[in-house]
Amino acid sequence: MLIVKKFGGSSVADRDRIYNVAKRCIEDYKKGHDIIVVLSAMGKTTDQLIAQAQDINPLAPKRELDMLLTTGEQVSVSLMAMAMNALGVPAISLNAFQVQMHTTSTYGNARFKKIDYDRIRHELDNRRIVIVTGFQGVNKYDDYTTLGRGGSDTTAVALAAALHADTCEIYTDVEGVYTADPRIVPKARKMREISYDEMLELATLGAKVLHNRSVEMAKKYGVQLIVRSSLNRAPGTVVKEVVGVERMLVSGVAADKNTARISVIGLKDQPGIAFKLFDLLAKHKINVDMILQSVGRDGTKDISFTIPSGDVREVMDIIKDNQNRITAQKVECEENIAKVSVVGAGMMSNPGVAAKMFEALYNVGINIKMISTSEIRVSVIVDAKEADKAMQAIHDSFGLED
Amino acid sequence: MLIVKKFGGSSVADRDRIYNVAKRCIEDYKKGHDIIVVLSAMGKTTDQLIAQAQDINPLAPKRELDMLLTTGEQVSVSLMAMAMNALGVPAISLNAFQVQMHTTSTYGNARFKKIDYDRIRHELDNRRIVIVTGFQGVNKYDDYTTLGRGGSDTTAVALAAALHADTCEIYTDVEGVYTADPRIVPKARKMREISYDEMLELATLGAKVLHNRSVEMAKKYGVQLIVRSSLNRAPGTVVKEVVGVERMLVSGVAADKNTARISVIGLKDQPGIAFKLFDLLAKHKINVDMILQSVGRDGTKDISFTIPSGDVREVMDIIKDNQNRITAQKVECEENIAKVSVVGAGMMSNPGVAAKMFEALYNVGINIKMISTSEIRVSVIVDAKEADKAMQAIHDSFGLED
Repeated sequence: MLIVKKFGGSSVADRDRIYNVAKRCIEDYKKGHDIIVVLSAMGKTTDQLIAQAQDINPLAPKRELDMLLTTGEQVSVSLMAMAMNALGVPAISLNAFQVQMHTTSTYGNARFKKIDYDRIRHELDNRRIVIVTGFQGVNKYDDYTTLGRGGSDTTAVALAAALHADTCEIYTDVEGVYTADPRIVPKARKMREISYDEMLELATLGAKVLHNRSVEMAKKYGVQLIVRSSLNRAPGTVVKEVVGVERMLVSGVAADKNTARISVIGLKDQPGIAFKLFDLLAKHKINVDMILQSVGRDGTKDISFTIPSGDVREVMDIIKDNQNRITAQKVECEENIAKVSVVGAGMMSNPGVAAKMFEALYNVGINIKMISTSEIRVSVIVDAKEADKAMQAIHDSFGLED
Repeated sequence: MLIVKKFGGSSVADRDRIYNVAKRCIEDYKKGHDIIVVLSAMGKTTDQLIAQAQDINPLAPKRELDMLLTTGEQVSVSLMAMAMNALGVPAISLNAFQVQMHTTSTYGNARFKKIDYDRIRHELDNRRIVIVTGFQGVNKYDDYTTLGRGGSDTTAVALAAALHADTCEIYTDVEGVYTADPRIVPKARKMREISYDEMLELATLGAKVLHNRSVEMAKKYGVQLIVRSSLNRAPGTVVKEVVGVERMLVSGVAADKNTARISVIGLKDQPGIAFKLFDLLAKHKINVDMILQSVGRDGTKDISFTIPSGDVREVMDIIKDNQNRITAQKVECEENIAKVSVVGAGMMSNPGVAAKMFEALYNVGINIKMISTSEIRVSVIVDAKEADKAMQAIHDSFGLED
């Protein structure tokens, strides 16, 4: 078997943890499997490098920031190769130049285009464990790029796809994918398996266990993912195309506190206004999530939408700069909100899910500010300080602990 | 003009020093010159990375150690590019993969074979300051290599040679090349200029201002070097082929405390014994410096030689493992010694230099343990604790302060 194993920064934060990971990888290697290990930067390294860059130049060119950040994973992979060699197993570390992991040109948020596998294949054929830097790529200018937060998950899936790996194991500090965040909902239950689509909704909705881009890619190339703990031997959660038929209506609850609502008020009620607004945001690469349009006063209309919290200042500036063009009378922003969602393939054919969720929130006195639905998801916006209570109530209401 | 500027680790150790270097480079850039900057890793970074590797695996594969160490310069160059950009000047950082600095395959001690200059030329043509990682290269396997201690000097000279730079400035924490180490000999005088050959002897003998391999390369390709301070505007010392005729007999005094003496005692007095001994050391890539053979007891002979202190354990092991083969009765080692040398192109035609040096040492009661001479150098081995006094006495005796 060819197995890709991905470990995050906390799993390689110090000497002991590096050896812990090395030993786990060597177990499978000694069973005769081919092993590719993808690593993030150690512990808080990436945050420290970003702080160092900020100190030198708060508006540092993104190209140079990527040049700086990619050193973090290179340190992890070389130390891991040293640890495996100390344990008597041949291992070799490779960075994005050596593997030739080609990406788009966007620094800080690149996407994979093509991954060469000659070098990795050559090293595997020599029975070496191959340790690859996560999170990074090389663009057409021969410059380093990074994939954005959580990008190492994507690196692991991309390598698994390119090399037709039998499985891609994502190691984290939890035992798998839960019906809700167990730190908030103590009765949350670990799922044995989940479909790509449900995982995708959960990942996008704030379940931090997997990066959504990595799930998209796994679905596209049919890569079987296993989410499991780097600390114990629990079997984890399998993410794949089709899951068992004896399915729950709802598979999980998630909350995303990293969200803000922008309200653009008093827009002229004429065709093209919404287009102008969202086209403007798209050109600035702002990810808009939920959108709600309502009737305003005196023949105008209001549009509210949610965005990641980090984009608030930029979006407010963009809209203010274009206030006349989009005919807005006023723009407001609300930051202390959270998006709480239920996800489940079962809800497609069951119209009662949304109602049951709203009832659960009503019973504990939580006000709903916005609603959005998809085929396998219902999301609501509530006050940030009520998000945990909302998750708990919904989890109870759908009986997810069983 | 095309100017290559090299700054060591202490010159980029923190934010203020990075900005200090950035500003100095920008001054010349604004005069219309093309600027290439070569940097070492910040402060003690390389030592820290080595310690981290030692902690993981004291016998770490050299290939992985180089993979780890090369991150140090990548951090320096990206932060420098950010600083220059903050000062409004376009700058770009490049590592050994991006420049394509091809070296031999020996990890930890590689040598340049060929440097591509297309990328650098392209960036210079776009009026960017180009900031290149010192100390590192890429070998034919597409793996990182490092050049050994002081390798950033060599990177600077190699780039100056490849791009036909007008001058190569090596910035240090001293103002240039002195007749002796000014921390030990307070009256030491800065030289206005020095020949490659004299600089080479001084560099090899322990004057840490320039790495000897970089001087060899500068001589080979006729690259004009200027050694100057990163802290002030003093003019520095020019290193070039031919220097003025009004030359001193002796140009400088140097001491190397990083040396040890091995004595192999009671060897059979027959042909081939010395060959076997030094062939053995050469195969282990041990750099032997001075060699002295003397008559031993009972028809045997003794051979003493000096080596870098760091090689003592390995050399003792090699000799003990082969004691029968080289017919040695005993092997001893003396570590607390220093090599003190005088260097000067003028001494070639003046036989009194050695005698004058020995007289100076006799006058202050210092015992000489070994002697070695070349056309432009006389070296003696003395007790390590007397090295500073020896330098002082020799410096006075030759009147180098004038």
